Formats: sequence, C-alpha cells, structure tokens
Amino acid sequence: MSKTVVIGVSGGSASGKTTVAYRIKDAFEDSVELLSQDYYYLPYDHLPFEERIKLNYDHPNAFDTQKLISDIRTLKEGKAIERPVYSYTEYTRLSETVEVKPSKVIIVEGFMIFENSFLRDLMDIKIYVDTDADERLIRRIIRDVRERGRTLESVINQYIETVKPMHEQFVEPYKKYADIIIPRGGLNDVAIDVLVHRIQAIVDET
Amino acid sequence: MSKTVVIGVSGGSASGKTTVAYRIKDAFEDSVELLSQDYYYLPYDHLPFEERIKLNYDHPNAFDTQKLISDIRTLKEGKAIERPVYSYTEYTRLSETVEVKPSKVIIVEGFMIFENSFLRDLMDIKIYVDTDADERLIRRIIRDVRERGRTLESVINQYIETVKPMHEQFVEPYKKYADIIIPRGGLNDVAIDVLVHRIQAIVDET
Repeated sequence: MSKTVVIGVSGGSASGKTTVAYRIKDAFEDSVELLSQDYYYLPYDHLPFEERIKLNYDHPNAFDTQKLISDIRTLKEGKAIERPVYSYTEYTRLSETVEVKPSKVIIVEGFMIFENSFLRDLMDIKIYVDTDADERLIRRIIRDVRERGRTLESVINQYIETVKPMHEQFVEPYKKYADIIIPRGGLNDVAIDVLVHRIQAIVDET
Repeated sequence: MSKTVVIGVSGGSASGKTTVAYRIKDAFEDSVELLSQDYYYLPYDHLPFEERIKLNYDHPNAFDTQKLISDIRTLKEGKAIERPVYSYTEYTRLSETVEVKPSKVIIVEGFMIFENSFLRDLMDIKIYVDTDADERLIRRIIRDVRERGRTLESVINQYIETVKPMHEQFVEPYKKYADIIIPRGGLNDVAIDVLVHRIQAIVDET
C-alpha cells in the first residue's frame, strides 16, 4: 500500500486558509481529497434550535475531533470513509453522509486543527496561513454584512466577544507547530506554487 | 537562454537562515549557486583598522547593495561574475575575487536582503527564516562566547545596543515581503524538503 500524505492547512478566521486549501486541491484531480474541520462540528441534537445557535462554535469542544482523527486513520489504511455533513442553517449534522475514498494526498483544513496533538501528529506537512488581524476583520465584515445580510454591529460584537479571544487562545498559539507559514493568505501565488510542486512530486512518486 | 530563478533567504541574526540556505544548496550540485550578502560588505579602506571595527555592520548602509544587484542581473543575463571576498579579521574587502558562473538557481542569503526594493524585485521566491528572539540570542551567545572567545558581557551589550534595535528597524519589518515563512530555522526538515522539491522541479525543467 502506498503512503498517504496528510497536509494540514490552518489559520485564523477569514485568513484565506480555505482558499489556499482549495487552490491546492484544484491543482490536482482525484489524487487529492479535502477534509474540512467544519464537516465535523458536533451535532448537539439533544438541544433545541434556540439553544444550539447560542453555543460557542469558535472553541475546540465544538468539534467531533475523535471522529476526524479516526476518519483520517481509516483513509491512511486505504479504506473509504463516510464523512459527516453539517448544516449551517440547522446548526446540526445532517443524516446524509458523503463518501471519501482513500487518496495519495489528504488536505485537512480548519482553524483549530493544530490544537489537538493526536490530530497534529497525523499530519506530514503543517501549513499556517498568517494574515494580519485587521485584514481578517475587514474580510469578515465584508463577508458577513454584504454577503450574509448581518448588521455591522452584530459582526463587530461577535468579533470582540468570541472570534478574537478564541483566536488568541486556540489558534495563534498553535502557529508554532506549523512547518511552513504562508503570509497574505489565498493571494500568495508563490507559496501556493511551491506547495503544489511538492504535492505533485508526492503524487508522481507512486 | 533559460530563465534563472533567484531565491532570497532572509531572517534575523542567528535565525538559522545560513543553515537553511546551505541545506538547500547542498541538495544540488552545480545547478545552484549561493551569494551571501556578507560577501558584499563595503570595504571602507579609507578608514584605519581601529575605525573600521567600530562601524555599525548591522545597518543597510554597511553593504555594497548596488554591486550585489548588478551581480545578480549579470548572472541572470547568463554571464559569470567575480564576487568580492570579505575578511572578518581585516574588516575589509580582500583584493582576491571568486568567480561565480551563471546557474539555473541562485540563492541570495542575508539578514537585510529584503530591505532594498530593487534587490527584492530580483527575487522569484522570498523566504524568511523566523526564529524566536530568545532562541536567536541563545545561539548568538553560544557562538560568540564558546566559539569566538568573547565575553558574555560584550555579547549582551552588542545585542542590546545594536543587534536588537537594527533587527527591529531593518529586518523584522521586511518579513511582510516574504512569500514563505519558515519557523524554527535550520532544523525544519519539512520546510526544507518542500523547498528542495520546488527547486528540483525548476532545475529539471530545462
């Protein structure tokens, strides 16, 4: 069985980490699979909707990290998984699943994926997308106000009360575990090109 | 004529940037040449030795950056250069030179190479080796006290009076121009492996 290479892509909220992860994935065909940490939000089905929307989703406890770890291990063993599907409108996990087949390269993407040492140890290359806090805030305001119809006040309140303190507690301190730090996020063509070439070599090896 | 790829490797004093640069170079044979910014210290021959040793060598003005720029441009045109040789014991440029032949990849290494925009614009990939200030200080103390026989007091004085303020003024602010940031310096095998593969692809292209 050929080795599966696991690449972790982390970074703060609105850092551009998802763009980086998808730009890497899009450079390939079926050889690269992408697992988003967001797929693994815990369901909290036992709570009513009104309670679920009040939970802190910027905390490591919001994720079913054990399932993410066991899914990656299964893929590394060359077996397919059924990954969960999370609904942002229902604030819970849906009953449907999506099959993910084993592939040479698996990208794991999420803002808290370096916090758990067992998850971290499954990764061969750890990438942290490092974008200045003010630029991340600007992107978040544009996204949530323009595209999601939220008020500026609610976005800023959420940023001050949850996003920023959780970033400082659970995201930024784990940057030190990264092998490579990419400044300026999804627009950093040079860094993405370097990573794509490394992954291409891995894909070509077998 | 095939394209020459110029890779800049910068970072603070004792960050491990020279180790990173040489580990990349050593992964290849004649396809990669390395130019150290230190080769391009200005001679200051008109000053007596006693004056020369008192100059601030942690400042952009200490370097013959125009010559470094024109040497890189000459190499990119496919022509050989005669690079200067600097003597750390004489604190000046020697009369001898070393021939550097044009190659597919040129690594330019130094702690202030991102400060000059004309020099920066010659680089295709800019790498910043980012090592914590306390670890850089420890390496510096070990190097200068154990290996160069200096007193601890003189090393710390120089660090506080020159190394730290010059780092904060002329090195750290230019980290933002890097395409890729490598934490933990010369021991970061994963990052060096990624870079070596990218450069290998460049070397193989022609």
